[in-house]
Amino acid sequence: MRQVSIVGIGQVPVQKAYTQSLRWLGATVVRQAMADAGVDQVDALFAGNMLSDELQGQKHIAALIADEAGLYGIEALQVRAATATGAAALRMAYLAVASGEADLAVAVGVEKMSSGGATPALAKALDAEREVPAGATLISKNAELMRLYCRQYNVPEDGLAHFSVNAHDNARYNPNALFKRHVSLQDVVASRIVVDPIRLLDCSPICDGAAAVVLAPRDQTHAYTGTPVHILASSVATDRFRVEDRPDPLVLEAACLSAQIAFQRANINKDDVNLFEVHDAFSIMACLLLEAVGFARPGEAWRLAADAEIGPRGRIPIATMGGLKARGHPIGATALYQTCEIVLQLTERAGKNQVHNTRLGLLQSVGGAAATVLTHIFGV
Amino acid sequence: MRQVSIVGIGQVPVQKAYTQSLRWLGATVVRQAMADAGVDQVDALFAGNMLSDELQGQKHIAALIADEAGLYGIEALQVRAATATGAAALRMAYLAVASGEADLAVAVGVEKMSSGGATPALAKALDAEREVPAGATLISKNAELMRLYCRQYNVPEDGLAHFSVNAHDNARYNPNALFKRHVSLQDVVASRIVVDPIRLLDCSPICDGAAAVVLAPRDQTHAYTGTPVHILASSVATDRFRVEDRPDPLVLEAACLSAQIAFQRANINKDDVNLFEVHDAFSIMACLLLEAVGFARPGEAWRLAADAEIGPRGRIPIATMGGLKARGHPIGATALYQTCEIVLQLTERAGKNQVHNTRLGLLQSVGGAAATVLTHIFGV
Repeated sequence: MRQVSIVGIGQVPVQKAYTQSLRWLGATVVRQAMADAGVDQVDALFAGNMLSDELQGQKHIAALIADEAGLYGIEALQVRAATATGAAALRMAYLAVASGEADLAVAVGVEKMSSGGATPALAKALDAEREVPAGATLISKNAELMRLYCRQYNVPEDGLAHFSVNAHDNARYNPNALFKRHVSLQDVVASRIVVDPIRLLDCSPICDGAAAVVLAPRDQTHAYTGTPVHILASSVATDRFRVEDRPDPLVLEAACLSAQIAFQRANINKDDVNLFEVHDAFSIMACLLLEAVGFARPGEAWRLAADAEIGPRGRIPIATMGGLKARGHPIGATALYQTCEIVLQLTERAGKNQVHNTRLGLLQSVGGAAATVLTHIFGV
Repeated sequence: MRQVSIVGIGQVPVQKAYTQSLRWLGATVVRQAMADAGVDQVDALFAGNMLSDELQGQKHIAALIADEAGLYGIEALQVRAATATGAAALRMAYLAVASGEADLAVAVGVEKMSSGGATPALAKALDAEREVPAGATLISKNAELMRLYCRQYNVPEDGLAHFSVNAHDNARYNPNALFKRHVSLQDVVASRIVVDPIRLLDCSPICDGAAAVVLAPRDQTHAYTGTPVHILASSVATDRFRVEDRPDPLVLEAACLSAQIAFQRANINKDDVNLFEVHDAFSIMACLLLEAVGFARPGEAWRLAADAEIGPRGRIPIATMGGLKARGHPIGATALYQTCEIVLQLTERAGKNQVHNTRLGLLQSVGGAAATVLTHIFGV
């Protein structure tokens, strides 16, 4: 198997609503990432998008984006894993290059949620027969987990609010972030309840965005960039689909398992990780993922946050450019934004957000209520 | 890159409407294919489905099927390329095994179109901004191509009807086919017009179905089966998205290109091919694909059909178990049915449909109006 590296990145600022089309957003970041790699052509394009079926009436977006980018002729396929879709596109591009079928592959994620109807479409990440008819949404499932967690571990009311504060602080200097403003603990706990106990400032926003990366075999990176970032591992694991069917709902087994597989493939352990781009779609999810990977014992991840250990100078910096919470969470694009951010961190181009002495970055992406989790490990 | 083989297949009969759920259909063929390979576990599952977002309200089907099949824990991702989606799942499973990331991977396709709303959902394979608002559907795009073809090449009224007759004749002995009855040329040209000049019997049906295959590295097949079928090549190509933007709408460039790439990868040429499972969603598409691959010159593929050269004893047998027309075309499952059928043919298990002396089978899968085409080549 060939080793694979990132040789180009492209991202547009996350916005509440772009007037431009989905295809324009996708093609724009594809051309940006290709320009960053200094190439005019690629062999393959893997597109991540979750909601265009309903929101844009479009079910053939990989070919559409390839055409819009002037790349028709190349391989183009769409990949999905519900809310982890961006990471699925990254994994497929990785497999295409690792296998030898492609020498240059683009992974692009794009989502345009501003068209309306995003929330019911997002709920389709859950079980349409056994959960959604009972009123379940991604917010309500996360609310269940948060309620259970806070009760089981006696978490104070502002215990999880530290995650949002950190994310917002980190977003301030990220030109691609949606929310570039500080929020205080008090702001979080005073924000309105969305689904009890989740408050508005515990949630990532509905927004538009697109990001892309170009992958090449590790032994060919010199042709494209002086600062390649290597994908040391890529993995996917699933769990019992419904939270109700899991022995302990607060243990995200797919996250544990995919992290273990990835650590093994990269031949590293968690203590080697310098930063963690976490799937903080909701504060509780960031908390549970830190525990699943092993950065905190069960019930203790919120303390990491409270002790500022998740900040840029902390023990395990997370959401270093704003995370899903404050950079924004345009679903299919999210993991590609995170990948771009890890590339910037590992190549010392993260500006005021630079985490010092970073050699290894971890990315986790959660599909639905963690029925699917993807883990990627990046290094220089 | 590792060579990849098929070591197990599973299919359920195509039906007008299953009472069972999408997940049941998917899990059933996954377990069937695994039983055929004699395994209880696999490393990865790649699911092909096009319509469940709208028709079943489900956007996370790979993990759902893995769970239903008792396989939670494994990698599971969904792959799409509009109406070529089944082939996209096959390609992804192929890349997973070829790369070395998976030793056993299942490609599963499933579609449940009987829930209603299939036709407008299928139109989303076209351009939602520039084609669909003008009333375009997959049928109307194929009707345009058929009208143009018949006019340009002076095709008689029943010229393309031979494709349907052949498909129906071949379906008679396929236990998994939807339509097991002979239709005559007269039946085809007397059937009602759907979109002029396409008649009902030129079209593949709306239906439910699921099929799956298990892939393993070629050098490990002995552990699973005495009759492996090897995937000699897998390729994808795209074209200008809209038919209107193509220099010659009757030349399916994505089909030409992906066939060329596949022939090169398999190190064969078209004359080595013993049977061709073609994407005969509409008769005109079968015709244009035969020309794109090079089995007939432009304007002459319909004569191949008229001369019975596409029959089981002809020069290039197509739709040997009924094709999309008569076995049925449950979109995401179709290419997996075709793959199962090619496996049966190449291992001399096709019963009354057996094509003699088959060593090489070709599969093409068309996304939308041929903006995406996948080609797979199989051999023993």
